[in-house]
Amino acid sequence: MIHHDTKQRGQSPGTLTFTGKQKVDRTKISVFDYNDNSYVEKEITSLDDLKELKFDNKITWINITGLHDINALEKVGRVFNIHPLVLEDILNITQFPKIENYDDYLFVVAKMIDLSPVKSINIEQVSFILSKNYLISFQEDEQDVFDIIRERIRKNLGRIRKLGTDYLMYRLLDAIVDNYFFILENFDDRIDKLEDKVLLNPDHVDINSIYIVRKEIMNLRRAIMPMRDMMYSVEKEKDRHITKSTYFFFRDLNDHLNQIFDSLESYREMINQLVELYISNSSHKLNEVIKLLTIISTIFIPLTFIVGVYGMNFNTKISPFNMPELNWYWGYPAIMVFMLAIGVGLIFFFKRKKWM
Amino acid sequence: MIHHDTKQRGQSPGTLTFTGKQKVDRTKISVFDYNDNSYVEKEITSLDDLKELKFDNKITWINITGLHDINALEKVGRVFNIHPLVLEDILNITQFPKIENYDDYLFVVAKMIDLSPVKSINIEQVSFILSKNYLISFQEDEQDVFDIIRERIRKNLGRIRKLGTDYLMYRLLDAIVDNYFFILENFDDRIDKLEDKVLLNPDHVDINSIYIVRKEIMNLRRAIMPMRDMMYSVEKEKDRHITKSTYFFFRDLNDHLNQIFDSLESYREMINQLVELYISNSSHKLNEVIKLLTIISTIFIPLTFIVGVYGMNFNTKISPFNMPELNWYWGYPAIMVFMLAIGVGLIFFFKRKKWM
Amino acid sequence: MIHHDTKQRGQSPGTLTFTGKQKVDRTKISVFDYNDNSYVEKEITSLDDLKELKFDNKITWINITGLHDINALEKVGRVFNIHPLVLEDILNITQFPKIENYDDYLFVVAKMIDLSPVKSINIEQVSFILSKNYLISFQEDEQDVFDIIRERIRKNLGRIRKLGTDYLMYRLLDAIVDNYFFILENFDDRIDKLEDKVLLNPDHVDINSIYIVRKEIMNLRRAIMPMRDMMYSVEKEKDRHITKSTYFFFRDLNDHLNQIFDSLESYREMINQLVELYISNSSHKLNEVIKLLTIISTIFIPLTFIVGVYGMNFNTKISPFNMPELNWYWGYPAIMVFMLAIGVGLIFFFKRKKWM
Amino acid sequence: MIHHDTKQRGQSPGTLTFTGKQKVDRTKISVFDYNDNSYVEKEITSLDDLKELKFDNKITWINITGLHDINALEKVGRVFNIHPLVLEDILNITQFPKIENYDDYLFVVAKMIDLSPVKSINIEQVSFILSKNYLISFQEDEQDVFDIIRERIRKNLGRIRKLGTDYLMYRLLDAIVDNYFFILENFDDRIDKLEDKVLLNPDHVDINSIYIVRKEIMNLRRAIMPMRDMMYSVEKEKDRHITKSTYFFFRDLNDHLNQIFDSLESYREMINQLVELYISNSSHKLNEVIKLLTIISTIFIPLTFIVGVYGMNFNTKISPFNMPELNWYWGYPAIMVFMLAIGVGLIFFFKRKKWM
Amino acid sequence: MIHHDTKQRGQSPGTLTFTGKQKVDRTKISVFDYNDNSYVEKEITSLDDLKELKFDNKITWINITGLHDINALEKVGRVFNIHPLVLEDILNITQFPKIENYDDYLFVVAKMIDLSPVKSINIEQVSFILSKNYLISFQEDEQDVFDIIRERIRKNLGRIRKLGTDYLMYRLLDAIVDNYFFILENFDDRIDKLEDKVLLNPDHVDINSIYIVRKEIMNLRRAIMPMRDMMYSVEKEKDRHITKSTYFFFRDLNDHLNQIFDSLESYREMINQLVELYISNSSHKLNEVIKLLTIISTIFIPLTFIVGVYGMNFNTKISPFNMPELNWYWGYPAIMVFMLAIGVGLIFFFKRKKWM
Repeated sequence: MIHHDTKQRGQSPGTLTFTGKQKVDRTKISVFDYNDNSYVEKEITSLDDLKELKFDNKITWINITGLHDINALEKVGRVFNIHPLVLEDILNITQFPKIENYDDYLFVVAKMIDLSPVKSINIEQVSFILSKNYLISFQEDEQDVFDIIRERIRKNLGRIRKLGTDYLMYRLLDAIVDNYFFILENFDDRIDKLEDKVLLNPDHVDINSIYIVRKEIMNLRRAIMPMRDMMYSVEKEKDRHITKSTYFFFRDLNDHLNQIFDSLESYREMINQLVELYISNSSHKLNEVIKLLTIISTIFIPLTFIVGVYGMNFNTKISPFNMPELNWYWGYPAIMVFMLAIGVGLIFFFKRKKWM
Repeated sequence: MIHHDTKQRGQSPGTLTFTGKQKVDRTKISVFDYNDNSYVEKEITSLDDLKELKFDNKITWINITGLHDINALEKVGRVFNIHPLVLEDILNITQFPKIENYDDYLFVVAKMIDLSPVKSINIEQVSFILSKNYLISFQEDEQDVFDIIRERIRKNLGRIRKLGTDYLMYRLLDAIVDNYFFILENFDDRIDKLEDKVLLNPDHVDINSIYIVRKEIMNLRRAIMPMRDMMYSVEKEKDRHITKSTYFFFRDLNDHLNQIFDSLESYREMINQLVELYISNSSHKLNEVIKLLTIISTIFIPLTFIVGVYGMNFNTKISPFNMPELNWYWGYPAIMVFMLAIGVGLIFFFKRKKWM
Repeated sequence: MIHHDTKQRGQSPGTLTFTGKQKVDRTKISVFDYNDNSYVEKEITSLDDLKELKFDNKITWINITGLHDINALEKVGRVFNIHPLVLEDILNITQFPKIENYDDYLFVVAKMIDLSPVKSINIEQVSFILSKNYLISFQEDEQDVFDIIRERIRKNLGRIRKLGTDYLMYRLLDAIVDNYFFILENFDDRIDKLEDKVLLNPDHVDINSIYIVRKEIMNLRRAIMPMRDMMYSVEKEKDRHITKSTYFFFRDLNDHLNQIFDSLESYREMINQLVELYISNSSHKLNEVIKLLTIISTIFIPLTFIVGVYGMNFNTKISPFNMPELNWYWGYPAIMVFMLAIGVGLIFFFKRKKWM
Repeated sequence: MIHHDTKQRGQSPGTLTFTGKQKVDRTKISVFDYNDNSYVEKEITSLDDLKELKFDNKITWINITGLHDINALEKVGRVFNIHPLVLEDILNITQFPKIENYDDYLFVVAKMIDLSPVKSINIEQVSFILSKNYLISFQEDEQDVFDIIRERIRKNLGRIRKLGTDYLMYRLLDAIVDNYFFILENFDDRIDKLEDKVLLNPDHVDINSIYIVRKEIMNLRRAIMPMRDMMYSVEKEKDRHITKSTYFFFRDLNDHLNQIFDSLESYREMINQLVELYISNSSHKLNEVIKLLTIISTIFIPLTFIVGVYGMNFNTKISPFNMPELNWYWGYPAIMVFMLAIGVGLIFFFKRKKWM
Repeated sequence: MIHHDTKQRGQSPGTLTFTGKQKVDRTKISVFDYNDNSYVEKEITSLDDLKELKFDNKITWINITGLHDINALEKVGRVFNIHPLVLEDILNITQFPKIENYDDYLFVVAKMIDLSPVKSINIEQVSFILSKNYLISFQEDEQDVFDIIRERIRKNLGRIRKLGTDYLMYRLLDAIVDNYFFILENFDDRIDKLEDKVLLNPDHVDINSIYIVRKEIMNLRRAIMPMRDMMYSVEKEKDRHITKSTYFFFRDLNDHLNQIFDSLESYREMINQLVELYISNSSHKLNEVIKLLTIISTIFIPLTFIVGVYGMNFNTKISPFNMPELNWYWGYPAIMVFMLAIGVGLIFFFKRKKWM
């Protein structure tokens, strides 16, 4: 099932509609406000507090979880002066990953991917508004891959508290992309297992399960490919919203996405080859089965005919032409030897044809 | 059946011929004349009234329904000074979607798609003549996706009465494209159902029905792909017939068409994989059937031969070599045990080969 | 059979060799000399008369039919100062469609396609030398699609007598391209019929006939594709050999070729899908056949074994173990009921497996 | 077997190693020295004579046959000041066709293709060093396609003695490319014959022979494709090593290579379709065979069961339930009619299913 | 199994993690310090000695083997002022081949490929830091293809001691690429053998082994393709880190990589065609088997029915209609001739259908 933009037809563009399912009880806004020397972490309960936020030369990361509360998001939009079409894209979870430059901020849509408990992939949209002093991130669900980043801010590990919002966004995107590797490993395992099965035990392979993996790879590819395309257009933003030194890290991220994409491509090729192999193997098996059927039939059907002949009830007393063999002294042994000869002959025939 | 330009061969280019079927009784011309403060809606019965239309700084939307009446359209062409080749394209419903810049106006051809009652797609051509003060739209049939736009004009909802003809055209195109999503959902459902069937109940899948869906997706793709290509060339018209702020909305439309196209591509891939899966599944089934046949035949054909042997009428009185078993005390039990041994042996053989 | 340039190897380039088959008795040269007010139509019998032709501000169309007479064509070449390599290309009917700019004239090679009586496509090369005052067209055979153009010149219909040689060439190319639509319709019909057959009556489809249509589409595509590519390069000639207003019509022609090509692409896809459908259908049929075989065999082969058992001639008088059932009072009914039970059981088994 | 550069690993680049097989006894150097008025043809036995060659405003064509004698080639390299990497490429017969501009000369690698007696293609590398006054050609074997060029030089036919070394190289390349057409014709014939067989007599087609033709087409394509790519880069050399008027002829050569490539592409498509057709045809045949098997089995297996029933030896005297039919007056005719009815019924059944 | 970047998720970028397996006991640093006149070769045991290295106008090649000792590599990084992201890439053995320009040095990642003893390919990453005076190479394992280069330095063979670090790097890359040819030859052999088997002895081909070769070619292609892409970007470094004369050699290397890639592409095509041929051949074989089954069954099943009829125990004494043939004088011969006629008839039928 591919989700579509289910905004009501005819609605004015910019009318806000959340196209996903509500995943959290209420929209939660958490704020990290930090510089190299100090940091504050708080949760904002009243939207009015948002306006109070001051950006006194610090970095502020505002993380908004839960997109179903359209009123709240509209308020956020007004406070931070976000364009209605941008808000619409944030709420439309079928939006493709993209980077759009608005003079005051950079708008970025990315896809966070998780393995759902039932081992199928679960794609969640994460959007970013990157401004000089603050970064706002929007996500559907509380579950994310950002905890390590939060920890690093709290403990002032590495460069994160020393650099700007662009580096923070890079770190968040990097966490998303790193998680792709983890998902790839899961596919790697599943394909390896399927391959082993098809090679060693083709009878117990369920073609449906290959099909399902193939479909999931297709979906993964659909989600990741535009991420890669998007990352190419980061270059245009160099020196505008992204500093040159941070751009350097984005290029590295691009490398990672290329690697991931290459892996996905090879998975696709591998799974297609597995299907082919499966089909070859099962048609090979069919050949074996039919050969056996043919060998058995070819040997015994003519012999059964012969014994049928001597089971006929012709009256041997009336005429010497009526099955005289029945009354011969060596009749039975002769016919048995004759049939044995036929059988052995056919076996030789099959041996020579390399069927046996 | 792909419709072709059935203009008579050798006709002068610019000779007007309607290449579709007449879908309405008579050509109907309805006019919306509005600005932010007032609006007039009227239907024009006499073509001469067209000339009376004044564009006193208002926006005028002239919607023409029914393209079979060539005389009427020629008159329209003369009143609004439309190039003969443009009129020819309006009437040729096999025309590809395109955007062509004529100095006085922009000519746009689009495809409106509907699900016909029999669930097959129905493609209708809609053309636009976009000028600074008026927008003329041409459509084959009365049924359209524009009613919500009309309502918004009447009730002055949103931006529509505040902005120009370019925004009006954007809203009409947006209504067309939004409807594609609705059609995609229908295909989504059909493919999901087919997939469920093929996965769970492959015996009851009719391969012909997969083929038909596949063909419809192909036709949908053929209609939508040039829409997407067309939208790319809107950019060239920026600042000419389309204001910069409206261009912004067109870019959004472009995003939607890309999403639609990506969905269509994945439908195509999914349906191809479904066909493959169906074939794999049915060949798997065939293997099962043939295995059963082979098992039964391999077990019983030799046994039938054996019982045939003892059904032969050799005269056992003439010679001790003629089937002495028939007169043995344990003859029958012995032969039954012998046959049972063969049968059990073969079953073990098949078990070991994992056929059973 | 793809025809190749059969010019003798090692010949000097520019050596004239006609690579096709002679289709007319003798090379015929017919001339239309016209302007808006008057027109002259004559046939030239002596090549020397060619030199007498004066182009006094009129348009002259010289149509040459039959390319086997190399002497005649060399003379034409000398009279009109045509480059030897151009003449070579005119005579080489395997030449790809192309547009080449020679300072004095534009050289155009096109492919005219006809359905031959046996319903196969027949490709004929038409070349044009376009100069300011005259247009020379070269064709292999008398049969062409230009009669309507001739009629329009004679009757001064439309624009043709008012515009220049470039418009005349456009009209001739347009007649050629219009004829493609006619040929496409023929293929459309054939594919529709094949599709109906494969969907409704797959048993009576001859796979060879699908193959032949597919091959013809391939050949059509090979002929039309370079026509389309050629038309793209017309743009470069704008303002040189082709006036701006006529270029406008050429762009329209380009649109038509794109439509034709798109149709051909979809035919190709449709015929490929038809082949797949045919194969799926016939393998489905095979499954049905084999299922029946297996059901019948699985039911009756074991039963035949059982009746065979009771046909054995063991001496029941010697031992109570030798088939005592034969002498039981309820023996026969018991065995019949037993066999019936087996048969009914197997039928239930097949029903549950959904084979019946 | 694809030949690889077998130069010893680790060798210094520019170390000369001939990577082919020796095809001639000794390296032969023949010289044509000509202008429009006179010509000299001689064979050079001592390499020292090479230095004596004077280029007094004449054209000199030095043709070197046999590349195994590395010493000789090194001497040639020194005399004509050829870069070591160029010499290495001349000797490496797996080199791709290419054009490389060295300030003093143009280096060209081409592939000459011949049909070997056993009807398989045989690819030979020909290299050219094009300088203003001389053209050096290097070939592996004495057998070449240049005899006609030699004859034209000797007899001063056509333009060849009037134009420069660039035209001479064009003529040699043209002879090579013309020969491709000859080879294509051979493939054309073979594919036509295969097609006839598959269409008319699929039983006698050897799939291996289709495979071999397909592989040869693949090899041909691999050799010719880079020739085409190379020819595109001739354009860059216009006005440097190649005069403008000769460039004109090269463009013509390019046209030929495009035609050849298009033919190869269509051969590839045709042979792929042939394989598909072959497979369809043989699976169709299989269906027919299995239908017959099923019809015969379905009719006779139940009947054989019935006659088996009446072959049982139940004691009819003991009980009236033991096969009383055996003692009926109309028993045998009744059972025969019964079986006939079953047989006819099944035949009707198969007729209705269109199996017969 | 495709290896992934297994750096712990959330780690700071630039955190060093070796993603491969430790292949050597301890990190070894060997240094070649040479110019045209003298050379020194030594092994560095203490990392502090690295700082002592003086580049007094000589060329220094520092080769580091074993990447598991992160501390050592960090020290190297500090001594030579290597960017943390570069160090990270050196240690991440899943890095794609690439060339990155850092102002002070050029960073190059390449893939060295070896055949492992079990005939499967083994890919090892080699990185280079190219500076004006020194070249640092990093490799995972001691086994490499550079011994010949070392020998040439020691013995001052060829140009190597006369030219700069860029030429040294070229020679090392050339050694890597030359080794690819060796690996290709191995694949060439394996494909040739598979082809012979499939053509001559398809019964003994193991489809799994074709699949494994195909997968290895896919992996080889994945490793080599980015090498080729990388080499294209060498051009950008011309005149910066690579001198013009050395660039010339890199272009040659590029040629080699193109050749290798073309070979890989044709291997891929060949192996795909082999799979198709294998499938065709085995389905052809299946047809043969089933034909035999059908012939035998069609002949003998009806005959067995007939003899079954005369094996029925109808009481011939009760009625003249009960199988009177049994008591005819010529009954048995008549029925035998009748059956012979059926058999011969069917054989003729099969002969005419060309099944026999």
